[in-house]
Amino acid sequence: MSTSSTYLLERAWVDGAVCDDVLVTVADGRFAEVVVESPAGRGFLTLSAVATPNNVSESLTTQSVLRIPGLTLPGLANTHSHAFHRALRGRTQRERGTFWTWREQMYAVAARLEPDSYYDLALATYREMAAAGITGVGEFHYLHYQPDGTPYDDPNAMGRALIQAAHDAGIRIALLDTCYLSSGFGKPPEGVQVRYSDGTAEAWAERVDRLQADGSAVVGAAIHSVRAVPAEQLPTVSDWAQQRPLHVHLSEQVAENDACAAAYGVTPTRLLHDHGVLGPLTSAVHATHLTDDDIATLGETQTFASFCPTTERDLGDGIGPSRRLHEAGSRLTLGSDSHAVIDLFEEMRAVELDERLASQQRGHWSAAELLAAATTDGHSSLGFSDAGAIAKGQRADLVTIDTNTPRTAGTGRDENTAVFAAAAEDVTQVMVDGRVVVRQGDREEIGRQLDAAIGRLWE
Amino acid sequence: MSTSSTYLLERAWVDGAVCDDVLVTVADGRFAEVVVESPAGRGFLTLSAVATPNNVSESLTTQSVLRIPGLTLPGLANTHSHAFHRALRGRTQRERGTFWTWREQMYAVAARLEPDSYYDLALATYREMAAAGITGVGEFHYLHYQPDGTPYDDPNAMGRALIQAAHDAGIRIALLDTCYLSSGFGKPPEGVQVRYSDGTAEAWAERVDRLQADGSAVVGAAIHSVRAVPAEQLPTVSDWAQQRPLHVHLSEQVAENDACAAAYGVTPTRLLHDHGVLGPLTSAVHATHLTDDDIATLGETQTFASFCPTTERDLGDGIGPSRRLHEAGSRLTLGSDSHAVIDLFEEMRAVELDERLASQQRGHWSAAELLAAATTDGHSSLGFSDAGAIAKGQRADLVTIDTNTPRTAGTGRDENTAVFAAAAEDVTQVMVDGRVVVRQGDREEIGRQLDAAIGRLWE
Repeated sequence: MSTSSTYLLERAWVDGAVCDDVLVTVADGRFAEVVVESPAGRGFLTLSAVATPNNVSESLTTQSVLRIPGLTLPGLANTHSHAFHRALRGRTQRERGTFWTWREQMYAVAARLEPDSYYDLALATYREMAAAGITGVGEFHYLHYQPDGTPYDDPNAMGRALIQAAHDAGIRIALLDTCYLSSGFGKPPEGVQVRYSDGTAEAWAERVDRLQADGSAVVGAAIHSVRAVPAEQLPTVSDWAQQRPLHVHLSEQVAENDACAAAYGVTPTRLLHDHGVLGPLTSAVHATHLTDDDIATLGETQTFASFCPTTERDLGDGIGPSRRLHEAGSRLTLGSDSHAVIDLFEEMRAVELDERLASQQRGHWSAAELLAAATTDGHSSLGFSDAGAIAKGQRADLVTIDTNTPRTAGTGRDENTAVFAAAAEDVTQVMVDGRVVVRQGDREEIGRQLDAAIGRLWE
Repeated sequence: MSTSSTYLLERAWVDGAVCDDVLVTVADGRFAEVVVESPAGRGFLTLSAVATPNNVSESLTTQSVLRIPGLTLPGLANTHSHAFHRALRGRTQRERGTFWTWREQMYAVAARLEPDSYYDLALATYREMAAAGITGVGEFHYLHYQPDGTPYDDPNAMGRALIQAAHDAGIRIALLDTCYLSSGFGKPPEGVQVRYSDGTAEAWAERVDRLQADGSAVVGAAIHSVRAVPAEQLPTVSDWAQQRPLHVHLSEQVAENDACAAAYGVTPTRLLHDHGVLGPLTSAVHATHLTDDDIATLGETQTFASFCPTTERDLGDGIGPSRRLHEAGSRLTLGSDSHAVIDLFEEMRAVELDERLASQQRGHWSAAELLAAATTDGHSSLGFSDAGAIAKGQRADLVTIDTNTPRTAGTGRDENTAVFAAAAEDVTQVMVDGRVVVRQGDREEIGRQLDAAIGRLWE
């Protein structure tokens, strides 16, 4: 007989509304029951004593109820992460430059990582994510080989380090193992890129086949970009992916569009579509510089649009057509990508605020829509279609924010507080798959762990 | 004989560089001494015992030294605040709309405030500012009269409430008492605007003359906008201001430019310049939609440009030409304006990040330049030219951030950490004019105070 725990959420986002006094029962990592209205006669809604997890018993009618104050949200999904970019935060702002000069600095870090240091950095980064309310991450992983391009004894040593790091941080991971074969259209891998390349898409598929998923990990696929995988090899990747998530960087930079047009005479979106890459399990990451036809194609194929607005600001990518994509049929998801900041609350509002800058109009996205992007749609795009809602049968993720901090106080304690006022620092407790993985007071240790993991890399 | 205190700053921003082990002596609210290099022989750089403020004695050679860990910055200046807008945070995002529909909601709050509730809300808001490292605020204040337009017994009751609130929060204030006479070009005040209007600029000047400054308060002037003060009355305001700060909303919206062109046949910048408003003690707030000639005029007159990027995102104002203004001769300052967020760290980086979105290039502003905007230049534009630097003779403001939080850890512990990684929540201690006004642990009480002050308004 499995044990269950019952929690009384002071206030929670359930079925598209903020509700008071939500009673949830968790068993085997899922919500066994979610009761929104006060169940008459049971009387536990007036409990003044607060139970601790240690004295929760197994019978619902007699068991203690743990009260969780604040505003509780479903778990947040970070759909686009390069964990190792966390080592660059604050260190790439010193000089003028473009996306392409930034990339040189990023490659310098990529050249240094080994499975142990990759694990340490990813663990600290995923713990920072957990503390920010992120319960699932899509890791766009391309650091496969040793610095000289030869395989590790286990050719998936680097990918396994990431899965282990997510596991040890207490969050779920979709390892989006990335096919990266060329440095540009028709150009072989250069420099550190020898760590990325399997040589052919078939060799990539053979290696990735040896990675196993489990209950908290999905192994999915990624195509780095139309630059990095020759068109004729794209179907090998999409055929391998089949019922798994498949992610691809798409039109982040105008230069990529220009090079694609020169090489193939079409836009990157069209090229991907013509080779069977787009579809309802595919995510187009960034999707910034699109034609009207591109938007229609992404919408018609129900391809997810994974926006990363704080990174797109940082790299000067530009402002993508998030609302037009949504209206065409693409569901929005959100990623912290380069980890210039890890704060899905900021990503949610940044989508709306950047649309305002571009249009000089307010009110493109409602808070409820942005929450859907950061929760249900985000988790679905990572292959966890049973996460992102506080509802019976769903994975038991709970993210609680304090609505009485200097940042959140007086803002209405509703979904607008979450989307337009809160920050990662307002998260007080995080449950993933029924297990509390972050408590108040954990931040200090997470900071020390980040400092140590990153400090070693820059020594 | 005055007492003095000595502090050893583990790391600090002094004279344009991050330095280790900075020894500062504070007397009478100012820095009496700032020693950057380790003074040989004194030995206090190796002190392992940490003194508490209570046992600081008066003799430098024998006194205890209080060690302040972390990265310490000069005090930050918030050059554009409407304190009462804090009550709107999270509450104006529910519907589509423009700047102008947002303004209707803002006016609903403006109609409810009385001196007591204005004081309560401003005190809580200024305490939030203090906790974010803001040591001086420019309050653009236009809520002068009773709801029906008649004066309070003390016609400056509302302005005095703000000065008292800043004093009680422990920060300095430049009360920018705002002349607001018309609802549009040639239109009398409407609705709640009867609270704003003195009738004529002369009556405005007579009222403001009765306000007194002191060591932590400056009484300055503001012209609400070219819409709100008829051109022929502009010189009355600028003549009154003389050696005081004078602020004016400028070209925040395209509609204002269009209406000004229709009424006067010139841009708002040209109109202000032709009536003597621009100059080195004037701040143009927003300065978003400018012609090449406007930029040249603002630069030549050395008018400050007060940018409020988080508000400009929120209201969909657009992205102003911050760098071009700087190159023309206008010094940048920063404000949190509508207080959608109170975080000068975010304002600093938002200037750079929004320029990146507009240009698709990185590296327009260095961290050092953005720190100058948030410190020395900001305080100067408020009439406190002796604040904003950790230097002998300057006002003793110290803002310390924790460089080992999840947000800041591993980011290099330099000015890029402050500008491109930190958030208000990373501030651990704030000193203003030699007095510690915020300590770790104050946030909870500040949150409660905000909740109470705002809750009463919305009852």
